[in-house]
Amino acid sequence: MSSVLIVGSTALDSIKTPKAENPRLLGGSASHAAVAASLFAPVRLVGIVGEDFPKKYLALYERHAIDLGGLQIRPGKTFHWAGEYEVNMNNRRTLTTELGVFETFKPDLPDAYRDTPFVLLANIGPDLQHHVLDQMKRPKLVFADTMDLWINIALPSLVRLLKRLDGFVLNDSEARALTGEDNLLSGLKRLHGMGPRYVIIKLGSHGSILSGPGGLFLCPAYPLAKVVDPTGAGDSFVGGMMGYLATARGGVERNLREAMILGSVTASFCCEGFGLNRTDKIRRSDVSKRVAELRRMTKF
Amino acid sequence: MSSVLIVGSTALDSIKTPKAENPRLLGGSASHAAVAASLFAPVRLVGIVGEDFPKKYLALYERHAIDLGGLQIRPGKTFHWAGEYEVNMNNRRTLTTELGVFETFKPDLPDAYRDTPFVLLANIGPDLQHHVLDQMKRPKLVFADTMDLWINIALPSLVRLLKRLDGFVLNDSEARALTGEDNLLSGLKRLHGMGPRYVIIKLGSHGSILSGPGGLFLCPAYPLAKVVDPTGAGDSFVGGMMGYLATARGGVERNLREAMILGSVTASFCCEGFGLNRTDKIRRSDVSKRVAELRRMTKF
Repeated sequence: MSSVLIVGSTALDSIKTPKAENPRLLGGSASHAAVAASLFAPVRLVGIVGEDFPKKYLALYERHAIDLGGLQIRPGKTFHWAGEYEVNMNNRRTLTTELGVFETFKPDLPDAYRDTPFVLLANIGPDLQHHVLDQMKRPKLVFADTMDLWINIALPSLVRLLKRLDGFVLNDSEARALTGEDNLLSGLKRLHGMGPRYVIIKLGSHGSILSGPGGLFLCPAYPLAKVVDPTGAGDSFVGGMMGYLATARGGVERNLREAMILGSVTASFCCEGFGLNRTDKIRRSDVSKRVAELRRMTKF
Repeated sequence: MSSVLIVGSTALDSIKTPKAENPRLLGGSASHAAVAASLFAPVRLVGIVGEDFPKKYLALYERHAIDLGGLQIRPGKTFHWAGEYEVNMNNRRTLTTELGVFETFKPDLPDAYRDTPFVLLANIGPDLQHHVLDQMKRPKLVFADTMDLWINIALPSLVRLLKRLDGFVLNDSEARALTGEDNLLSGLKRLHGMGPRYVIIKLGSHGSILSGPGGLFLCPAYPLAKVVDPTGAGDSFVGGMMGYLATARGGVERNLREAMILGSVTASFCCEGFGLNRTDKIRRSDVSKRVAELRRMTKF
């Protein structure tokens, strides 16, 4: 069973919704992606936290057998993000961003990490994504995620990164911002032209769409009766997807659809609790059950 | 092969998009639904137009073998709607609404229409939907569509209508307005409680979701490289769906998913031309081809 190396943010999130307020949850793109991926494969985490990082969160990573050899613990404060969701959960606004030790983050990978076959560059600045990729020895599969911020402030670096990827994942508004195309299919075409063979556009509660050599795949989202906190859903999606790809036999082309479905279902659990509260508790069998339901809900 | 009776608006639409302006196209919920349904089943149209209604549009209905015994032609002007779409086509605003002869519309159905087994109450005021339903003799299946306007100005009549329906179709923002539920699944539950056994929430370019005795069905939309004019897409969807149900063997429960897929694909063609320009030109084989593609795009 191959491992997945995941680099991204490791943070404390303070999240306000119309119904509740939760300070200093475990958050960050790498945390969500790593716990999701750990359902399917061994995970190596690359990130940085401060000395204030709660021991219970280290224990959480360890409970999921996440290798912390690449997690730096440095003097100073852990990256802290505070945000607030509106009633319909599709709109959120940032209240605070305190970078803390993240400002000095420039990871040197442990030697043992450098030949990890599957690499997920979860959402983080593209310069750091390059820096990690520079240290890898011929990985088998490299996927990256991003966010609007990097399109706005680090576009040239992101554009260079795209040429180094097998797959690129972003949401619909980011695809529009990056390509200038309002139509999703036109956007996908443009994104292929920028490098990656696989492009996945995330559509929130409407699922996602893959474009690749095997054509389009419309990946559904598992419908939820209650969304508690969607933070990290996109990270859980790519994490679960990469975790499954690392363990599946027969190559990406054959397994990517199933991998997206598993990622999508993992993301549905993420939305049912604050931070990682719900994802932390699920087992592979919980995922399988929802995949079976999703199969029934989409059959025609 | 059973017929479908369709009542709704028969109108002239003047549609502006960022790229073009098209005055006095054939439009209205019943026109779109009838032409879509005619791909699958014989259609009986109930509507009203003025003396200004272009002969070429009567010829268009007739080309699709739509029975016009229930289409009144009255002195005065045809209902005229003018609207404008923004760049992303998800937002439109109404520029003009001239009711014309529609103000006096109160159809008496031809005797031959009263035992039509399949009834589609396309979008029109709920009082008129009741009035038509009152004249029907034990129809086999009754579905209705609606719009935000009726939720705002004719709610009690709409609520009474819901108790008389087998199926109810509306879009997500209408479902939120009608039920007060932001969550789709909660909204579906509430809507069942108001009467109909089948509830379908339309999600525009994201497809639709059915809730019924057989559980949920997530119906995808066929992805389009270019959307010319989405007016009437929802009407084409329900029209195509009802047309297929009228011809399929084995009952609603068995055929509704396939019917939604066919409606969804028919709606995709509608979006590719102004008014009915594209829908008018397609054949059943064009629909089948896209259904096969959609099957490939959703398989996992």
